Amino acid sequence: MTLNGDWVTEISEQHGAAYSLQLGQKVHSETTPFQTIEIYETKTFGNLMLIDGFMMVSTRENFLYHEMMSHPALFTHPNPKNVLVIGGGDCGTLKEVLRHSSVTSALQVEIDERVTRVAEIYFPELCESNNDPRASFYFGDGIAWVKEAPAESLDIIIVDSTDPIGPAEGLFSAPFYRDCFKALRPDGILVQQSESPLYHLDLIKSMHGEMRKADFSKTKTLHFPQMIYPSGWWSATMASKSVELTAFRSEDAKQKPFATRYYNAGIHQGALALPEFMKGL
Amino acid sequence: MTLNGDWVTEISEQHGAAYSLQLGQKVHSETTPFQTIEIYETKTFGNLMLIDGFMMVSTRENFLYHEMMSHPALFTHPNPKNVLVIGGGDCGTLKEVLRHSSVTSALQVEIDERVTRVAEIYFPELCESNNDPRASFYFGDGIAWVKEAPAESLDIIIVDSTDPIGPAEGLFSAPFYRDCFKALRPDGILVQQSESPLYHLDLIKSMHGEMRKADFSKTKTLHFPQMIYPSGWWSATMASKSVELTAFRSEDAKQKPFATRYYNAGIHQGALALPEFMKGL
Repeated sequence: MTLNGDWVTEISEQHGAAYSLQLGQKVHSETTPFQTIEIYETKTFGNLMLIDGFMMVSTRENFLYHEMMSHPALFTHPNPKNVLVIGGGDCGTLKEVLRHSSVTSALQVEIDERVTRVAEIYFPELCESNNDPRASFYFGDGIAWVKEAPAESLDIIIVDSTDPIGPAEGLFSAPFYRDCFKALRPDGILVQQSESPLYHLDLIKSMHGEMRKADFSKTKTLHFPQMIYPSGWWSATMASKSVELTAFRSEDAKQKPFATRYYNAGIHQGALALPEFMKGL
Repeated sequence: MTLNGDWVTEISEQHGAAYSLQLGQKVHSETTPFQTIEIYETKTFGNLMLIDGFMMVSTRENFLYHEMMSHPALFTHPNPKNVLVIGGGDCGTLKEVLRHSSVTSALQVEIDERVTRVAEIYFPELCESNNDPRASFYFGDGIAWVKEAPAESLDIIIVDSTDPIGPAEGLFSAPFYRDCFKALRPDGILVQQSESPLYHLDLIKSMHGEMRKADFSKTKTLHFPQMIYPSGWWSATMASKSVELTAFRSEDAKQKPFATRYYNAGIHQGALALPEFMKGL
């Protein structure tokens, strides 16, 4: 079959695979000092944000990613109060973080303010907690922010970034992880999106190594479906100074006072179970 | 981006989404009385079988599907001896079934013998157990075969079919499930591929209903990644006459004497944990 009409296609060059969504109207396009942001309506995925042509977030399936980037870490930490989100300009991760009543402050450090301003218009449901008094925003370089962060001032750092190429590359190596380590309290947890288990196993392995180099004593990858990202299967990797990452507050997760669409205690446990081919991470 | 050069694209028309693989040579093409079978070399997915233009199986990722269609059911049954595979012409499910030493007979009933003959050439690793003395093959209609099957003669029936349109449609409703029920022993289990959790929730719900109508007392869906199928996320649904489907022989699964690439006891448990939006099945 061939793609007639208007489709956007993201090619995973190295893997000879591609994913396409059928488009309606292009409703927004701008080039910021950092990147080109486009918003399209799609046939069944709601609105779609592209950055430099890569699929970032759609209305229909972002719940998988945002829930899995936040709730596993927050239900693993014994009592998360102060949370930092690096990247995450669409505000979906921030929204999930703020569902936890223990959280007293959540700061989003996104390099490109325009991503957030555009998300407020086209993904209002992801931005519905932006006026929460516990939320704050800083638009600037996350790597620099963490380097200057007060020592032991944070409980959770969530790195919700683009792929490890270009500006995000520095987010995937030991010097950045050392700064995160310093900024986290003794029971602090770092969690970072870590690409596709099928396509990027070498990167995931490297991340575990770099996190250990930065003195994190425990690391653990979890996996989940994510249709608009390459291979349709995605992962997040957690690093901890001291807290066990294979256990979590499962009773709290079972009785969570907020609704989710993917995450629950069983899904959390299941996401921690690695396929045979990933054993040895 | 646009797909320059040779790609095969499978469009999920209703969902406005498509998945493409970059092709090398077309190495086989034939039209049988049932369908058109094509085999292509791909850039990184090994060989790819298309049936009537739909992606059926690739060398790189079939392990996900074949392991999850077989091992959960076989490790749930207390002592599976006699197994029937309906469809499954590529023989990958049969191969996984035969890894279980308790199995004394495994019959594959595939309507199109050419699928199996072509798989023997282009997917030899999936056919490596075809000469196992416990394996047998019948090329004909699976629905008719089950209707005539001796009562209580089987422990497991695996329905490894194409989508519920055309010839496979009859495999998704109560009359067929009643015949399966009759052919299964009192601790028998039926397992069937049940499409995408994201795209086909209505079908999955309908399958549970039809299975219950056919007197199966327990039904359970499990989910797993599957990049070449629509949405990249797939499911199998089990039905049982009496055996609990949420418990399984986890110690046996932990100590399985054969290698897998995806399946293990943790993955099994995790696959049974349904996302919030699937609760109520």
